[in-house]
Amino acid sequence: MSVSEKIRVSIEKSSWIRKMFEEGGKRKAKYGAENVFDFSLGNPNLEPPPKFNQILQKLVADTASGQHAYMPNAGFVETRQAVADYLNTFNMPKFTPDEIVMTVGAGGALNVVLKTVLNPGEEVIIPKPYFVEYNFYLDNHQAVPRLVSTKPDFSLDCDAISEAMTEKTRAILIDSPNNPTGNVYGEEELKELAGVLSHFSEKFGQPIYLISDEPYRRITYDGITVPSIFNVYNESFVVTSFSKDLSLPGERIGYAAAHPDISDKGMILAGMVLCNRVLGYVNAPALMQRAVSHLLEESVDISIYQKRRDMLCDGLASFGYDFVKPQGAFYLFPKTPIEDDVAFVGALQEENILTVPGSGFGGPGHFRIAYCVSDETIEKALPGFERVMKKY
Amino acid sequence: MSVSEKIRVSIEKSSWIRKMFEEGGKRKAKYGAENVFDFSLGNPNLEPPPKFNQILQKLVADTASGQHAYMPNAGFVETRQAVADYLNTFNMPKFTPDEIVMTVGAGGALNVVLKTVLNPGEEVIIPKPYFVEYNFYLDNHQAVPRLVSTKPDFSLDCDAISEAMTEKTRAILIDSPNNPTGNVYGEEELKELAGVLSHFSEKFGQPIYLISDEPYRRITYDGITVPSIFNVYNESFVVTSFSKDLSLPGERIGYAAAHPDISDKGMILAGMVLCNRVLGYVNAPALMQRAVSHLLEESVDISIYQKRRDMLCDGLASFGYDFVKPQGAFYLFPKTPIEDDVAFVGALQEENILTVPGSGFGGPGHFRIAYCVSDETIEKALPGFERVMKKY
Repeated sequence: MSVSEKIRVSIEKSSWIRKMFEEGGKRKAKYGAENVFDFSLGNPNLEPPPKFNQILQKLVADTASGQHAYMPNAGFVETRQAVADYLNTFNMPKFTPDEIVMTVGAGGALNVVLKTVLNPGEEVIIPKPYFVEYNFYLDNHQAVPRLVSTKPDFSLDCDAISEAMTEKTRAILIDSPNNPTGNVYGEEELKELAGVLSHFSEKFGQPIYLISDEPYRRITYDGITVPSIFNVYNESFVVTSFSKDLSLPGERIGYAAAHPDISDKGMILAGMVLCNRVLGYVNAPALMQRAVSHLLEESVDISIYQKRRDMLCDGLASFGYDFVKPQGAFYLFPKTPIEDDVAFVGALQEENILTVPGSGFGGPGHFRIAYCVSDETIEKALPGFERVMKKY
Repeated sequence: MSVSEKIRVSIEKSSWIRKMFEEGGKRKAKYGAENVFDFSLGNPNLEPPPKFNQILQKLVADTASGQHAYMPNAGFVETRQAVADYLNTFNMPKFTPDEIVMTVGAGGALNVVLKTVLNPGEEVIIPKPYFVEYNFYLDNHQAVPRLVSTKPDFSLDCDAISEAMTEKTRAILIDSPNNPTGNVYGEEELKELAGVLSHFSEKFGQPIYLISDEPYRRITYDGITVPSIFNVYNESFVVTSFSKDLSLPGERIGYAAAHPDISDKGMILAGMVLCNRVLGYVNAPALMQRAVSHLLEESVDISIYQKRRDMLCDGLASFGYDFVKPQGAFYLFPKTPIEDDVAFVGALQEENILTVPGSGFGGPGHFRIAYCVSDETIEKALPGFERVMKKY
């Protein structure tokens, strides 16, 4: 035996995804990267906004002492103040730096919150389709996912959520705008969800937390804004990053925010700071903390992603693909015309179009297209999408 | 209930340490920070070497595309190649980029290795005194620490290690130069340790891993070098960071290296990359990965730490303190003249000298002095150390 049993199983289970990636790599080598249309990864292809480079150059020109040293595990107070100030420009409960913990991306933020509140064996409800990395994150803390279907338009099914509640339910984890569907949860459904959570919190005698993963909050279309969970429910956390709106995923910078009126707040905040430390993150990268404190109002040009969404949606609709038009993020999650989504994704691959089967997101019978790619990639891929559709 | 049971206990247990920090803060507010001598934290007070700032400025001036994007979870291949090339300048087994995973500091690296190999309930032997953060890191993966005493000079006690071996033993975790003792494990004791590990690996029919945490490797004195575990034992990992030798602890950049001849190498390496991802780190910060690839030969001026060690050791010895002179790192771990190390640290605090009780490192009857502080702090603190010693 070498790796742990769990890791061995994970490696073996992921081998078909790896096989897909390898197949993509082979096709790029064989046909040239420009002739393979890679919609498989959520790696934003837009560059960070120009102000990011300006700020970064300014920051590294200043070599004052202690800039790369340890700071409190929660992060620089100036950065946390800047995040609080930014949040306070919205119609929301008022934040102070205390409720903000700077983290190693949204992945770090989510692990910090999960470790803070979850006891081994407790359950977290997750509406599906969903970002399957959540399975690993829950397992890191020996918690158990309870997957609950959404409605056909991917909105929350509060009846199904109620049915999934048990005495072991400790939290619900949502993601809006959603990966892989691009769906944004509206204020009314969040209020209904808050009602359900309040009811069961009271019934079971302890808070059931609402955790919202929001790295795509700024990436919405047609003037839609993402309603804040902080306005509907006190026992709540938001985890997010600057990976998508500033196109900085490699730099691992994000934060977790706890509701200013969360119960037992002192313990919750101390727990988050402790978890940031003991999970081995210690703190969010120092230079990037200082950079983002100047960039809270900035984002990449969202209209570019909207244009790509429209190109893709218009094209696919005209070929007869069936999908819910995304309101945000840069993912489209159409139905596959045949039941077997892995086979359908394989057929697209024959056209040098790389996508991911919906089964990989708890949404079989669908496939995910990540359209954070160039206009040209979309244009050149459309005929292939049409040919495959005609086959079925 | 709000935070998990485990986190609640950790917060409550850590409250006396926090109380100490708060007391230190109060004293700084009352007497002025310049009159409080803070030896409590391993936060290097030297600035990064000048070349670090030059490289960083050069890197951020180049705004070529994709520099802040996702890269493979193991890190940029250029950076991993640079690390392998650097390791290959030593008399050691030859490395390729495959055996290197760039991580969020040494804390990230250690968690990656532990998660890769540990099944729940398995045991890891740790020679004490030790860096108690290891307890949290093991607990993250539901593993159990088995603390084993070292000899009076803090060298490894291989008999005690043998006695601690059980069928559940999965690894031994060492730290050289050691925090809190500054001790460096010599080649002969490492060879003896390797013999013990080989014996029990064979006996129990599975490898018992040797994991060496080496962030202080470059910080040694009197011409001492740290022998590599890679030369004595194949089933081994090194975890390290650039936090101390480049004075970059806030930037969270380090790496894990697996022995080029480790058994079941493909699974081990795949496991490390998977764990880097699923622990929520995803990858080491991109910009710092690119920076350190140009800085592998660099370090802060170690002679400054050596001078401080000598000032402190000469002073304390003349006052009658009993200690083993550190060979590396920037910690001194003297015996307390009374049994109660917490009381003794309290007495030092009355002199505005902040240190940490040895109990906090599994070494009661000692206290830790972190001498990564200015010469002036040491000079001005010495009379206080003398007065407290005279009391007992």
